[in-house]
Amino acid sequence: MSKIAVVALSGGMDSLVTLAEIRAKGYDIAALHFNYGQRTERRELEAFHAICDHYAIETRLVVDVAYLAAIGASSLTDPSIEVERANLDRTGIPSSYVPFRNANILAIATSWAEALGASAIGIGAVEEDSSGYPDCRREFFSAFERVIELGTRPDTHITILTPVIGYRKAEIVRRGVELGVPFELSWSCYVRSDIACGECDSCALRLRGFQLAGIEDPIPYVVKPRYG
Amino acid sequence: MSKIAVVALSGGMDSLVTLAEIRAKGYDIAALHFNYGQRTERRELEAFHAICDHYAIETRLVVDVAYLAAIGASSLTDPSIEVERANLDRTGIPSSYVPFRNANILAIATSWAEALGASAIGIGAVEEDSSGYPDCRREFFSAFERVIELGTRPDTHITILTPVIGYRKAEIVRRGVELGVPFELSWSCYVRSDIACGECDSCALRLRGFQLAGIEDPIPYVVKPRYG
Repeated sequence: MSKIAVVALSGGMDSLVTLAEIRAKGYDIAALHFNYGQRTERRELEAFHAICDHYAIETRLVVDVAYLAAIGASSLTDPSIEVERANLDRTGIPSSYVPFRNANILAIATSWAEALGASAIGIGAVEEDSSGYPDCRREFFSAFERVIELGTRPDTHITILTPVIGYRKAEIVRRGVELGVPFELSWSCYVRSDIACGECDSCALRLRGFQLAGIEDPIPYVVKPRYG
Repeated sequence: MSKIAVVALSGGMDSLVTLAEIRAKGYDIAALHFNYGQRTERRELEAFHAICDHYAIETRLVVDVAYLAAIGASSLTDPSIEVERANLDRTGIPSSYVPFRNANILAIATSWAEALGASAIGIGAVEEDSSGYPDCRREFFSAFERVIELGTRPDTHITILTPVIGYRKAEIVRRGVELGVPFELSWSCYVRSDIACGECDSCALRLRGFQLAGIEDPIPYVVKPRYG
């Protein structure tokens, strides 16, 4: 009997390498993507499908979690904001931390995993780069595993896999190269959807990772500053 | 300083009494409602707003979680179902258990609670009536509290309130009457949106509760069988 893992795949490099690590462990992959009204939503979705095509992953689920962005924004603006309205009009996502975001992602992934009979869920959380994000820490994932054990059917047992949690970006790049991941299909830029800007936080982290690893990033950039 | 609780309010009687219990403890309420493509979605949303109006609750959030119904269905039908499509076309909800549903609800409630600065979240889970639903048990909620503690900001502390978890339906009715809740504004029927059918599982549980409590249910029914 094959074992299945539900993997959250944003289209960026961390989740791509996470996917490759979990495949390398022998899991069949069910790929889960989240739209949340971010500026580059379509580009990320395109990357998601391109990566799934590359690995011949047929089981895909795209979930709209625009309410998370609305909730994040509401703390700054209007606490009584209606999510449906925000869903329709929202084009940008606030750069602020979205409270408890990973718990939402894990809950959806677990629901789908239990429905599919999967034995694991994977997420590309990175402890190092996310200092200050409490829901990227190992203890958080351990505690969530206990919630899964208690909150699902008695015969359901689901492990949380976070293979890149201890890596720095340069290690993620190196490991991705070892695993032969298609970095050219991934997308990280928060600002543009045609050519990566090279200057947003996400581009900067990615470029620094490639530069420190001494590897050329295969995607095109408008500008390619030296961050390493 | 006032203390705030985010309360999940379906429009049914369990969550209504939960809301009243939490109000009675001195919390200001932020009310959270979920649409998931159920047949009576509009009627339940109407009940939600009527109950909020009754208690002068201004802080309201309505979240679309249609993907949960799609995930629940996918276990029976097509595992690669796309949620967006299901969102558009779905009119009924499968009667089957939605895996890990309460974890999804708690995750969203916690995100909103942290954004609002709330110190509690409330949910109308009932252990007795939900035997077989693992995510209605006390241990599940305790474990989730630990996840909240680890997954939110260091200065965020959120308690999960489940005031009716140990009640049977008749006790919920009696307690609701003591607290003066507007049962006439609540809606439980899964089938009809004008007059409750009296024959679906949800009507049967509700009617039995009122009958065992010896109290007349104020909402109209097409038929009113004796269940007690």
